[in-house]
Amino acid sequence: MKAPSKLLTGTSLLLAGSAIFAQSSAKKTPKLPNFVLIFMDDMGYGDLGCYGAIGYTTPNLDRMASQGMRFTNFYAAQAVSSASRAALLTGCYSNRVGITGALMPTAEIGINPEEETIAEVLKKKGYSTAAVGKWHLGHHKKFLPLQNGFDEYLGLPYSNDMWPVNFDGTRNIPASLKNKLNYPELPLIKGNDKVREIKTLDDQSELTTLYTETAVDFIKRNKKSPFFLYFAHSMPHIPLAVSAKFKGKSQQGLYGDVIMEIDWSVGQILKALEENGLDKNTVVIFTSDNGPWLNFGNHAGSAGGLREGKGTSFEGGQKVPCIVKWPGHVPAGVVCNKLASTIDVLPTLAGICGAPLPERKIDGVDIIGLFRNVPDANPRNQLLYYYNRNSLEGVRLGNWKLVLPHPSRSYNGVKPGKDGFPGEYAKITTGLELYDLRRDPGEQYNMVEQYPEVVAEIQKIVEQARKDLGDDITDAPGENRRKPGSIKE
Amino acid sequence: MKAPSKLLTGTSLLLAGSAIFAQSSAKKTPKLPNFVLIFMDDMGYGDLGCYGAIGYTTPNLDRMASQGMRFTNFYAAQAVSSASRAALLTGCYSNRVGITGALMPTAEIGINPEEETIAEVLKKKGYSTAAVGKWHLGHHKKFLPLQNGFDEYLGLPYSNDMWPVNFDGTRNIPASLKNKLNYPELPLIKGNDKVREIKTLDDQSELTTLYTETAVDFIKRNKKSPFFLYFAHSMPHIPLAVSAKFKGKSQQGLYGDVIMEIDWSVGQILKALEENGLDKNTVVIFTSDNGPWLNFGNHAGSAGGLREGKGTSFEGGQKVPCIVKWPGHVPAGVVCNKLASTIDVLPTLAGICGAPLPERKIDGVDIIGLFRNVPDANPRNQLLYYYNRNSLEGVRLGNWKLVLPHPSRSYNGVKPGKDGFPGEYAKITTGLELYDLRRDPGEQYNMVEQYPEVVAEIQKIVEQARKDLGDDITDAPGENRRKPGSIKE
Repeated sequence: MKAPSKLLTGTSLLLAGSAIFAQSSAKKTPKLPNFVLIFMDDMGYGDLGCYGAIGYTTPNLDRMASQGMRFTNFYAAQAVSSASRAALLTGCYSNRVGITGALMPTAEIGINPEEETIAEVLKKKGYSTAAVGKWHLGHHKKFLPLQNGFDEYLGLPYSNDMWPVNFDGTRNIPASLKNKLNYPELPLIKGNDKVREIKTLDDQSELTTLYTETAVDFIKRNKKSPFFLYFAHSMPHIPLAVSAKFKGKSQQGLYGDVIMEIDWSVGQILKALEENGLDKNTVVIFTSDNGPWLNFGNHAGSAGGLREGKGTSFEGGQKVPCIVKWPGHVPAGVVCNKLASTIDVLPTLAGICGAPLPERKIDGVDIIGLFRNVPDANPRNQLLYYYNRNSLEGVRLGNWKLVLPHPSRSYNGVKPGKDGFPGEYAKITTGLELYDLRRDPGEQYNMVEQYPEVVAEIQKIVEQARKDLGDDITDAPGENRRKPGSIKE
Repeated sequence: MKAPSKLLTGTSLLLAGSAIFAQSSAKKTPKLPNFVLIFMDDMGYGDLGCYGAIGYTTPNLDRMASQGMRFTNFYAAQAVSSASRAALLTGCYSNRVGITGALMPTAEIGINPEEETIAEVLKKKGYSTAAVGKWHLGHHKKFLPLQNGFDEYLGLPYSNDMWPVNFDGTRNIPASLKNKLNYPELPLIKGNDKVREIKTLDDQSELTTLYTETAVDFIKRNKKSPFFLYFAHSMPHIPLAVSAKFKGKSQQGLYGDVIMEIDWSVGQILKALEENGLDKNTVVIFTSDNGPWLNFGNHAGSAGGLREGKGTSFEGGQKVPCIVKWPGHVPAGVVCNKLASTIDVLPTLAGICGAPLPERKIDGVDIIGLFRNVPDANPRNQLLYYYNRNSLEGVRLGNWKLVLPHPSRSYNGVKPGKDGFPGEYAKITTGLELYDLRRDPGEQYNMVEQYPEVVAEIQKIVEQARKDLGDDITDAPGENRRKPGSIKE
């Protein structure tokens, strides 16, 4: 762990030394808490020890959970990368802000500059801000982190598989992957500029280390100012890659190794906070953008018993791990089983530091009452499950989830892939299905016939949602949808 | 909480005062740790906050988990009461010792006096021993706790629904429940004697309180001697009942109230240990006899996304919560994702205090390496899933589970019951099914065709098991099965 990441040495174009970012001017608001938001890519609900993982351990994250709060009903807003990230950073359902699906290297859109990100909200209170890792809200300059409230950025502008490389790391790309042929080399961006191309799996194996060093460096340089660190790992999205120090460390192959390195990284962040006397005044939040990409077989994570995974609005697609640590505020060792979502992070952080909310309508609610374990706090009683751009596929009310008829990918009944290569998807079409998520978090027992009164009650929310945000399935336009940014504007 | 349980006052036949048990002679082996084993009835894998429960909180158990170790791959040995208890207390697969299913009040068998229970094992090291709560290993005197290594006993000899009372608490028993008509009044046993009849739901509502007071009293009286307390709750087995202090306390109806009272009870035990200076030298283990009885609908727990529930060898039937606390030995806040089972408790406790193991063959292994979080410890790599007396229905090897063709109850596709009344069971017959429990703990994706080599490897274990313990499905007799005790001997 002593040698700096290989991506920073040798042929790297990055500056040597520990100061990866330029020094930002020190700010003097010492009493405001710092925020560290660690965001995983395709990590499933069952992928951490403290959520039941098998075959490897995550001691740092498990300890973080025992020192803080672990959520068991926490949801990403859509089960795919760009959509989920847009929701996290704006506090809105992603279709409200016009970012859906996963933006390709050919995309000409990105996050609308008029949307306010968490970083922009916190800037109003004088926070130093950094984004480290995967961005995926538009790779053109106008959409990059520095144009969205972040002082500093180092990372990949989109997913780590969006490169002209086959699944096995070679460049023998078959015709079936013709998109890949047209992708540019995968750029490592610093600030607004490409500083290196990530060309091989060996390069990717250093990403977690590089990101971690970058994040730790940012923390060290910002001891005196309140800061917001948004740390979005590229892993465990395929292609999986792990540094030499974790290779073969788990009993679960490469996927386990990768998670163990992520766990190490979280440990480094927590250690840096402690060593710099910041741990008591820092809110650390750990969660994931969506569930596991199950057709990658042994290179995929686990939804922990939930139905389906990434790219579906079933629970396995959207329910994700979430751990929050804030000593003295968030009680230690408490498990929160109340409903919450990534869209609630923005208003909650804004509330903690007293920053005004964005002027535009947001969907998130302040969940500080959950953080503080207030017995009667119940800030969110419903959640909309949108997917596939703007299709309303389900609604949760209390413990009930109504699945609306829709086509879906499925991972059931098909052979999963292996060693980095994907398997096929199955295609299914759901009926109207009602699940009692208390007794049946795995969505196995359809109760639509038994509880018509619940169906009727949720249908009212469906109508509201269609009016507000639209629904591609029923061609409802939605009165309050906003547009993404475009390079043509 | 100040007034003693109603079952102890008023018309109770129990002696008044705090000394519920007769004083046992003080023993002088102060350095041996105490053992408290709390065993639930029909509590599912998803029923605690720290395992993802919805609608109520379990702060004491969640805190216990954060101060100790929480297991995520811990299994009851069979998914039904008597069988599971026989396995826990003897360290054997329950069919090895001849106790299967649930013993009825008409049963003439019970645990064979020649089997050694945990209590008998610990007696060799001078432990004071008490059983509190549900027994269910034979209600005739020769099978009761006092004849099986326990100094003291207070509780019900079998399940709390084995009484001449209908599901609604009335005595209007329909012909379809003709068994119930023949049941005697439900006896509360103290030592070897019936001291009271539990005749109403009101009586049952005081059981958790009575058991807790009894357990706390035992702890207080045994400050100086090493002790083993086996505390087997009657709840949350139906009929659900809760004391006035927890009625309506959860947002999840009576089931949630009952779990919150159980959580309170655990808090009382932990508090009693602390107040008597025993917490640092006591191993506390909390687990359950099998998964939730799902056809009881709102009076059933949750398997937390696992497949099926009680009375099946699917994961929802046998995977149960398990929390272990032993300050200074079991590290705080660690989650153990390695395989373990209730049959491992006996050899582990014996190992901790240096007691010799039973002379007869047992199936459990010492899992102290898991308790101590030794990285390479992997004491159990396989598990046999027996059910339905002596039917081998599945085998686990590492993360793989092979389901053998067998008929099973199912909770899928049928209307669950309500307010104490059960729904029907569905009947299914499985094929040969292979599940990767790492990616698929909910047993949704059958991989039998994709991994023939794994199937072949597990089939070798199947053959071994059939030779050793038999299999009713294939008429294999089993060379090493032993007989239960009988009142006729």
